[in-house]
Amino acid sequence: MARYFLRLASELGMALNSLQPGSVGPIRPQSADFSEPLLLKSGQSFSPYQLIYETYGQLNADRSNAVLICHALNASHHVAGTHPDDPNHIGWWDNMVGPGKPVDTNRFFVIGVNNLGSCFGSTGPASINPVTGRPYGADFPVVTVDDWVNAQARLADRLGITQFAAVMGGSLGGMQAMQWSIAYPNRLRHAVVIASTPRLSAQNIAFNEVARRAIVSDPDFHAGHYYAKNTVPRTGLSVARMIGHITYLSDDDMAEKFGRQLRGANDYRFGFDVEFEIESYLRYQGEKFSTYFDANTYLLITRALDYFDPAKDMQGDLSKAFAHIACSNLLVSFTTDWRFPPERSREIVEALLTAKKQVTYAEIDAPHGHDAFLMNDPRYHRLIAAYFDRIAKECGT
Amino acid sequence: MARYFLRLASELGMALNSLQPGSVGPIRPQSADFSEPLLLKSGQSFSPYQLIYETYGQLNADRSNAVLICHALNASHHVAGTHPDDPNHIGWWDNMVGPGKPVDTNRFFVIGVNNLGSCFGSTGPASINPVTGRPYGADFPVVTVDDWVNAQARLADRLGITQFAAVMGGSLGGMQAMQWSIAYPNRLRHAVVIASTPRLSAQNIAFNEVARRAIVSDPDFHAGHYYAKNTVPRTGLSVARMIGHITYLSDDDMAEKFGRQLRGANDYRFGFDVEFEIESYLRYQGEKFSTYFDANTYLLITRALDYFDPAKDMQGDLSKAFAHIACSNLLVSFTTDWRFPPERSREIVEALLTAKKQVTYAEIDAPHGHDAFLMNDPRYHRLIAAYFDRIAKECGT
Repeated sequence: MARYFLRLASELGMALNSLQPGSVGPIRPQSADFSEPLLLKSGQSFSPYQLIYETYGQLNADRSNAVLICHALNASHHVAGTHPDDPNHIGWWDNMVGPGKPVDTNRFFVIGVNNLGSCFGSTGPASINPVTGRPYGADFPVVTVDDWVNAQARLADRLGITQFAAVMGGSLGGMQAMQWSIAYPNRLRHAVVIASTPRLSAQNIAFNEVARRAIVSDPDFHAGHYYAKNTVPRTGLSVARMIGHITYLSDDDMAEKFGRQLRGANDYRFGFDVEFEIESYLRYQGEKFSTYFDANTYLLITRALDYFDPAKDMQGDLSKAFAHIACSNLLVSFTTDWRFPPERSREIVEALLTAKKQVTYAEIDAPHGHDAFLMNDPRYHRLIAAYFDRIAKECGT
Repeated sequence: MARYFLRLASELGMALNSLQPGSVGPIRPQSADFSEPLLLKSGQSFSPYQLIYETYGQLNADRSNAVLICHALNASHHVAGTHPDDPNHIGWWDNMVGPGKPVDTNRFFVIGVNNLGSCFGSTGPASINPVTGRPYGADFPVVTVDDWVNAQARLADRLGITQFAAVMGGSLGGMQAMQWSIAYPNRLRHAVVIASTPRLSAQNIAFNEVARRAIVSDPDFHAGHYYAKNTVPRTGLSVARMIGHITYLSDDDMAEKFGRQLRGANDYRFGFDVEFEIESYLRYQGEKFSTYFDANTYLLITRALDYFDPAKDMQGDLSKAFAHIACSNLLVSFTTDWRFPPERSREIVEALLTAKKQVTYAEIDAPHGHDAFLMNDPRYHRLIAAYFDRIAKECGT
């Protein structure tokens, strides 16, 4: 028992007295170019590529206070603060990262990095393929969580960070934190894995597959080479997003927010235009998403989700995949998350305990479903703040 | 307490010793034409129309042994037996209805009726609009559960049935059984409501809406008038069906049947073709459905589901909607049904008890999700058999 323990969330809950939240302010993204080929899990080699990233806070003298934040399906390197040219463009985890926030940029040097295959700046399907002079489109290689982590490690090399204080992410971001602990055991002291899963279930894959079918069957998809046609498979992408969105929210939360409320009417109008508020909301979400997200990226990232399964090469034994990890682990799940429910986090916890690793696990009673990991929930944030307070003390910051 | 009771499933479980299942054999559908306009809930009047139906068993002398079976989204009047011209076309509830089966056609006169708006024979969007000489398409009126029940009542008049021994249905069929009890309190002695709900949740509506978006955004939809173009919105309908299908199965059942099993391979192929068995299964289900189902019917029936809400005109008080019903009620739900989970059946049970009506409620521990109501589950079938045995004795059959 000396080598591992399951620390209760309540032990940590009181460690931080109060948060004094602030913003990191305007942050200009940076880029790093890599010419050495990256060997992908598929066997393909990929080069050259560029990674876009942002940093917040200061790296300390012994370079021990770096935290890497990994993004999920539809996010980016823009984790916190605003863009200098667009003060309304706030980072996707700005409630989590900043001065006095749970991941306190007064104490940590935080890096947000955009993954390969994205549509937010790092090399992706819309980037120009140097071989053809045209956008990669469908020729962009299938990338995996492993590949992203390998690319992130090169960025860490470039920034002179040999060991992260923590690698952290929610959902797909949590998969990357797990993969870091497996692939680079000596390069992180803590893995913070929130609302994640050791592998997609058949139902998870099913939802991804339907979303992909909606995209590829849109006539504007042109087998992935729509850039040249000056068009985008907007309706397919919109339907894909609507499907995804349903899985991010809890049934109860949706019932409370929308219920059966009618849109601008007291009575049924008996037609197929928007009738219920939930229809209006979903259509809006789908349409908005389709204006800024790239369909090929959606395909790539859902496939990376499907493929993640660190136990696969260990005859399904997840604890064996964790056999050589060296970091401490914080696992967090949310009671109403039906996409990656608490049971899936508990599987990870059990595998880590079986492998005799340090685990802290918290199951947060939150109404917001999978999206809870992005929300400003006080209990959740107090927990993360307390955990990072402990990490900061280890770093001497 | 004298006027109502909650009968436990276990009380009924032993009433029938054994089933000797058989088939009703080849059955030719019949049709009934109606010229008198049907006033729809939307305010529109609709005529003329035809209803297709099948009957099994014999109506007894005092016409007291008739059972009406109402169908759900993708089914029809073809409940039991085979079609005389197609011995492989077995009725959708053949495991439930037949000689010696739970709804025993040796004792009951069973009617299966196809609803208005369907694509299986009753007047629907693909039928010729006598005003234009062309298929109705998008001009087919929006129909509701109330309208279907009113049309079914006219068919009952035509068949000389003033009171049903039972009206029975699963899912959307259960909504029709409920609506019968509310709209025609003296015309049924039992309502059998299986895997149903008093109203769709926001999440239920959300899934319907995404399915509809997939259909109407298919360029082959032509605003619902695709018949004239000799085309069908096959890809949209296929995606719609895939979405629906996910909601019919339980997460666990899907995990057990498909898990993360790869299709014809041991290792990932890193692409977007079918990789996992679940993808292959869903694509097949979607494509098959799109060859025989009509997209306009899918829109109409999902909208009828959305609109069903008998408590709406009673300030949300379902017990008030049940105030004047006269029948006994059997409610059945399945533990793993996440489309219409047990909680929704319990809402109906509570409303019926509040209204001081007779209710029997059974929650069946079954792995198959919403689809469980169609499955050959012995406990479920024993329960239904026992309940109908009691009804048969009341009828003297």
